[in-house]
Amino acid sequence: MNNFTFHNPTKIIFGKDTHLEIGAELKAYGIKKALLLYGTGSIKRSGLYDSTVKSLRDAGIEFVEFDGVVSNPVISHTREAVKVAKDAHVDAVLSVGGGSVLDEAKAVAAAALVDHDVWDFFTGTAMSQSLPIFSILTLAATGSEMNGNSVITNDATEQKFSFTSSFSYPKISILNPELTFSVDPAYTAYGSVDAIAHVIEGYFTQSSGALIQDRLTENIIKSVIESTDIIMKKPDDYDARAQMMWSATMALNGMPVIGLKDVSFPNHMIEHALSAIYNIAHGAGLSIVIPAWMQWYKEQKPERFKRFAQEVFGLENEMDGINALKDWFRTIGSPVSLSEVNIPAEDIPKIVANASEMAKMWGLGTLYTQSEITKILQLAI
Amino acid sequence: MNNFTFHNPTKIIFGKDTHLEIGAELKAYGIKKALLLYGTGSIKRSGLYDSTVKSLRDAGIEFVEFDGVVSNPVISHTREAVKVAKDAHVDAVLSVGGGSVLDEAKAVAAAALVDHDVWDFFTGTAMSQSLPIFSILTLAATGSEMNGNSVITNDATEQKFSFTSSFSYPKISILNPELTFSVDPAYTAYGSVDAIAHVIEGYFTQSSGALIQDRLTENIIKSVIESTDIIMKKPDDYDARAQMMWSATMALNGMPVIGLKDVSFPNHMIEHALSAIYNIAHGAGLSIVIPAWMQWYKEQKPERFKRFAQEVFGLENEMDGINALKDWFRTIGSPVSLSEVNIPAEDIPKIVANASEMAKMWGLGTLYTQSEITKILQLAI
Repeated sequence: MNNFTFHNPTKIIFGKDTHLEIGAELKAYGIKKALLLYGTGSIKRSGLYDSTVKSLRDAGIEFVEFDGVVSNPVISHTREAVKVAKDAHVDAVLSVGGGSVLDEAKAVAAAALVDHDVWDFFTGTAMSQSLPIFSILTLAATGSEMNGNSVITNDATEQKFSFTSSFSYPKISILNPELTFSVDPAYTAYGSVDAIAHVIEGYFTQSSGALIQDRLTENIIKSVIESTDIIMKKPDDYDARAQMMWSATMALNGMPVIGLKDVSFPNHMIEHALSAIYNIAHGAGLSIVIPAWMQWYKEQKPERFKRFAQEVFGLENEMDGINALKDWFRTIGSPVSLSEVNIPAEDIPKIVANASEMAKMWGLGTLYTQSEITKILQLAI
Repeated sequence: MNNFTFHNPTKIIFGKDTHLEIGAELKAYGIKKALLLYGTGSIKRSGLYDSTVKSLRDAGIEFVEFDGVVSNPVISHTREAVKVAKDAHVDAVLSVGGGSVLDEAKAVAAAALVDHDVWDFFTGTAMSQSLPIFSILTLAATGSEMNGNSVITNDATEQKFSFTSSFSYPKISILNPELTFSVDPAYTAYGSVDAIAHVIEGYFTQSSGALIQDRLTENIIKSVIESTDIIMKKPDDYDARAQMMWSATMALNGMPVIGLKDVSFPNHMIEHALSAIYNIAHGAGLSIVIPAWMQWYKEQKPERFKRFAQEVFGLENEMDGINALKDWFRTIGSPVSLSEVNIPAEDIPKIVANASEMAKMWGLGTLYTQSEITKILQLAI
């Protein structure tokens, strides 16, 4: 096991009706005025907007609001949100929505306290403080509710970049599985793919051999699969939505990678190129990349792929596990090839060029050369 | 899944040589003067005392020291430690040792700031603040390094009581598996029993049916068993000690009981009576109580005991799992009967009376009547 530091100070409030506590929680924290950040209207249709506003008002919390955060949030919109936060002198950012809103909230919370452009945080400028971040989550997927990560796309340059900071852990994340009942099957599926992707990368790339971490990852993958299967038949099954929501949080709260050596995120790297260029859903991009990458990578870790097949699917051989996962992605309606999302094979060089730039930034350039990324993408045509 | 709040702000620093960072960590936290609390001398023999003192001095941290914390720490000694802390006006408590030292440290850290007796915290007086607590752990067992629990025995009244407070989470816990190389086989075994006990109670008593939590518990039990088996043959196997240490932390950091309904700790309740009266090691008491309790309880949850047998030991039936666990306790040298620790059957009424008092305090009096506790203890003769 590698040396590690684990420090995850986010307070999770989980369960039915918990979103009604948001005003009281901000008040208890000493917040006077928040930026209420949200997306493109689903929280208005669901009534969550109204109950949030009521909860804030009942607690005497002032707020300004800014909406329009899109899936794969963009830096141009983030810059506008930073301006709103600065002009209103807010002392907190409240994200009401999924991982995209939360990722933008983290960027805004940090940028509200500095003079430089918010994009600088994504290209390496260090962070030394942040406004406190609060969240009501509406989608089980990214794990952003219990970590310090933010991913934003620069819409001008087609770069999908990220930062990780100890200052960006939400202070309080409210997770009410009922708020995910209305998520449509496609986004439910993409969320499940995303959660699996968050643990599967460490599981295969690491070289540590700590069985407690292997089993935690297998547990999360199995929990995502079994709960998603129930949700697809019965979208308002509370226990399935709850298990899915907690599994997605666990997948990227730092626990599954504790003590692992040599973890890398090549699937996210390649997918970021896809969604930066084509603006496809992150989960959809991942379900295309993962089976191809697994097939390309399996010769390097045959025992690990065998364990995956056996422990997750009860199957015998390396390729059985890969096929079972690919079939499952297909079953829940997430694409498993570039052609399904109308990306032509001729575009591969363009994707490779983008991913290759990230490979260098992420320190993966030696293994993920342009020719190797090309091979992976060709398996995904 | 039940509604839950999860908030575990302890920072874990884990791995080789990490204990050398203690001075720098206290300094970074702003500590000027600490109470250095430790046990009965093992840290002097191992050199950990010297390296800790050097690390504190190098960082310019003043300290007063107080030693002599015993396994099953007692309130009389705790009171003396509180006096030392108050007289020296320390602004932190540093525990260097196992769970016993840490439990006493938590009590001292809270009591140093109040005028009333420290025992009051164990009989229901609420806590509203605490000095910050830091820890260098030398034993993988109690999980106290990443939770807000403290267990102390009142040596005058033979009561082993506990408190849980959000103020008592250590700010920083340093876990270096190398520091456990010298733990003797008996205490290694008791630690392993304790870690298993922490998850097994929730696993059997809960009524929730969240598979992600079931698997996490099974994972921890399997990880404890496999790492302990290696340690018994090779006490300085780093990876085995590391997996054991992290498994014990995970077992009682709140994760395994997330969202579980109706969890109770009857084995701990009965064991606390045993170690309060006879001062036997907590793990030794647990390995006596657990198999007896399982046998007594199995009719109430046959499917759960079947799952346990299958998932943990690959066996078929309820009783197979119970026997396998009992055999394993025996294999690692932890007692599985009262007679092995020279407690005669005639003492059962005395133990029952003590446990029964706790049953009322813990809200378990309806199920755990004197006659039912007697039945359990009779299965342990």
